[in-house]
Amino acid sequence: MEIKVLKNILDANDQMALQNRKLLASKKIMMINVWASPGAGKTTTMLRTAEALKEKARMAVIEGDVASSIDTVKLTESGVTAIQINTDGGCHLDAGMVNMALQNLPLDELDVIFIENVGNLICPGEFDLGEYKRIIISSTPEGEDKPHKYPLMFTIADACIVNKIDLIPYVNFDIDNFTRTVKGMNGSIEIFTISSINGNGVDKWADWVLKQLDNYRK
Amino acid sequence: MEIKVLKNILDANDQMALQNRKLLASKKIMMINVWASPGAGKTTTMLRTAEALKEKARMAVIEGDVASSIDTVKLTESGVTAIQINTDGGCHLDAGMVNMALQNLPLDELDVIFIENVGNLICPGEFDLGEYKRIIISSTPEGEDKPHKYPLMFTIADACIVNKIDLIPYVNFDIDNFTRTVKGMNGSIEIFTISSINGNGVDKWADWVLKQLDNYRK
Repeated sequence: MEIKVLKNILDANDQMALQNRKLLASKKIMMINVWASPGAGKTTTMLRTAEALKEKARMAVIEGDVASSIDTVKLTESGVTAIQINTDGGCHLDAGMVNMALQNLPLDELDVIFIENVGNLICPGEFDLGEYKRIIISSTPEGEDKPHKYPLMFTIADACIVNKIDLIPYVNFDIDNFTRTVKGMNGSIEIFTISSINGNGVDKWADWVLKQLDNYRK
Repeated sequence: MEIKVLKNILDANDQMALQNRKLLASKKIMMINVWASPGAGKTTTMLRTAEALKEKARMAVIEGDVASSIDTVKLTESGVTAIQINTDGGCHLDAGMVNMALQNLPLDELDVIFIENVGNLICPGEFDLGEYKRIIISSTPEGEDKPHKYPLMFTIADACIVNKIDLIPYVNFDIDNFTRTVKGMNGSIEIFTISSINGNGVDKWADWVLKQLDNYRK
């Protein structure tokens, strides 16, 4: 019986994801689902991405958090369109929550929507939100063994951002080992190394986003 | 119907947790459930704790991971008794998994068992494993806003270890702000600041563990 209930929940989510995908296609908006551990630097990466995309693409962020609206305040104070979803204890966003957020965003004025999912390397990977691409942000202080321990997201993501490369001198993180591991699990994944604090490397990541937008609209 | 199924699952977990608690009481073993984000330094903290407790208490670690046995290898290579649980995609340990691990540990030769739960600041907080105390490890690169975003664990933990204090000069983390926030949510929580890389502060944390063991056995 448990299995049947779970299957129904997933079916409902997938149907809503499909609806989100259709809505976004009709508006020519590309949506990217962003996964990461708590504290990997999702929001500062979004702020840097907004700077890099300025004049090139109009972006908004859907902020998923268990509680608080700290990140949405940070983004809107910097002039980035953002909307908060609080899951109230829930460990992931689902397509229905994202649908409600989409209905409250100015869709006619947007090219790209990033979903900052709940900080969690496990559960969000199991829920399709209607996104076009999925990315994972992994930060150097977390250590280079994370792909081995949390394989699902690294296996199914389209791109991986290695953030906090400014901390490499002070932590135990070998970028070549990390890259080899991730590429071994997912041959087609793109890897970007950035520092969301000082902006290093963000240009290449932003170029990739613009290239995906071109592909999406073709 | 979903609610009923979920309730049954939780009831089954709580019954198993009670069984674990009785088994450990009969052996006078104190069990501590350890929560943290991925990469906060749970395993290095366990290694330092084992060093500090040497000659004072006999400890073992139950290692919870979605996949891999990297941490159990690290611990056993350092002479720490450890046993691996792989959840195979699951986002938390449950009391049944811990019961199986307990049956495979040399209980007559132990004083303290630490459960290194799956790296996740949300789901593990909802499952009683039969532990005596619950602790959360928060690392400085994650940022001082984590208690606001993931309130449950900080609210119900008995102690909080702030790890990676050696990185404070390079990251944005104000320890006074963090302490004020956590104490505001949970007045009775104990806070320890450590560096699991160089061992600073581990002695005070280990003293607390020994004090809890005394209380537990009274």
